[in-house]
Amino acid sequence: MRTADELREAVEAYLRSLSFASELGRLEEALRYVLESGGKRIRPVLCLAVAEAAGADVEHALPAAAAVELVHTFSLVHDDLPAMDDDDERRGRPSVHVAFGESAALLAGDALLAEAMRLALSYDDPRVARELVDATLGMIGGQHRDITGDDGDLVGLHRLKTGRLFAASVGLGLRVAGIPEMDQAPWRAFGDELGLLFQLVDDILDGDGFALRLPLDEVRHIADGATERAREQLDGVSGDTSVLRGLVDAVAFRTG
Amino acid sequence: MRTADELREAVEAYLRSLSFASELGRLEEALRYVLESGGKRIRPVLCLAVAEAAGADVEHALPAAAAVELVHTFSLVHDDLPAMDDDDERRGRPSVHVAFGESAALLAGDALLAEAMRLALSYDDPRVARELVDATLGMIGGQHRDITGDDGDLVGLHRLKTGRLFAASVGLGLRVAGIPEMDQAPWRAFGDELGLLFQLVDDILDGDGFALRLPLDEVRHIADGATERAREQLDGVSGDTSVLRGLVDAVAFRTG
Repeated sequence: MRTADELREAVEAYLRSLSFASELGRLEEALRYVLESGGKRIRPVLCLAVAEAAGADVEHALPAAAAVELVHTFSLVHDDLPAMDDDDERRGRPSVHVAFGESAALLAGDALLAEAMRLALSYDDPRVARELVDATLGMIGGQHRDITGDDGDLVGLHRLKTGRLFAASVGLGLRVAGIPEMDQAPWRAFGDELGLLFQLVDDILDGDGFALRLPLDEVRHIADGATERAREQLDGVSGDTSVLRGLVDAVAFRTG
Repeated sequence: MRTADELREAVEAYLRSLSFASELGRLEEALRYVLESGGKRIRPVLCLAVAEAAGADVEHALPAAAAVELVHTFSLVHDDLPAMDDDDERRGRPSVHVAFGESAALLAGDALLAEAMRLALSYDDPRVARELVDATLGMIGGQHRDITGDDGDLVGLHRLKTGRLFAASVGLGLRVAGIPEMDQAPWRAFGDELGLLFQLVDDILDGDGFALRLPLDEVRHIADGATERAREQLDGVSGDTSVLRGLVDAVAFRTG
């Protein structure tokens, strides 16, 4: 079993080694710029950790893990555009539209989504790509609810906007490992709890979302519940889940 | 064999009957708005006509044909945005960003691309979706070359920007019909010529692209050559190609 840090290094190395469609030409620079801007890589690490705990080779799961990260990155590039959140910086560097221009950022986001699908389609089982595209549609629906202020149901909003891609990270790991549908439930429930936990901690750190609606003690209480349930779900799966348990702790206790 | 008009009606009916991911919520209105704004539907009709000429049922090919049209539509929605061409009208109606706002238009384009992939993934053969995603990346690369003015090689630019999706329309029809790779060459060469012809006629009608670079007589001469070669390629395939021959004429002699 590799540690979470080793999995993160494997993700970074794989992302650096990715070859994009040659027809993208110079647009590739924008893709590399944003993909090499770092980030926590929590989704691809989760995907790899699930795949390895479920018995797959990490190498076999890398395209799926990278595909999830590319979908996440596509959403950030489009989110940062002036028409959306209008953020000039991301991870301490100029956003893609500041560095390359708005139209290139728009096309770079489109290309990242398409490249993500290409990676997911490198598997012969079409269910890998289906799972990713379904999650992407859920995420887009969540972004739309967010910008239209249709966020009365904050849990439902986050289940789409953040949760669907966390769920897909777990789901892709399971599919790559060949875990039958009938055995997937506890793994998937674990992914749902981890996604909720990630969002709660995010909101506590940023002081928005749940942290704007509820007293901080109450948000922390909900987060503790999600942490507990995530651990319990891992009790229900076979395989070495030590790395996944470490991920739960890392998400629960992160400070940035 | 259905006529081109009958195939177009089948496409329109299928697009109207499409169900989108329920999680898109109210964003679905923007997708329906743009998909029901009409258009020539040349790409999906081409896909269906190839599939039927190659021995497939039209019904079996409809998801693939619609997938190509959704990719085309996604590119129009993003192209019309202020960051790109800044077009307020499309087909005589307000563009999506005028009717629904810029952020909704951005997300609607993203959703159309994802829904296109979902349709292509309704086939168990992943080569259908792979062909579509590869063509999409080529098209995006062409759009980027276009906005950066890197269009010294106009034939190469159009082969990406228009040609790749025409080629995919043919390719998806062949894959849905189960035509083996070794027998695909003349069909694909036909698609390449038809895509070039479509672009040349477009440029003559709009007075841009080729029509800006070359004397009109010369553009017409190149178009005649593409028409001739498209017909010749159809001589090399087995099956009833009468509808495809009619499409070549319709593209060559269209006036709007």
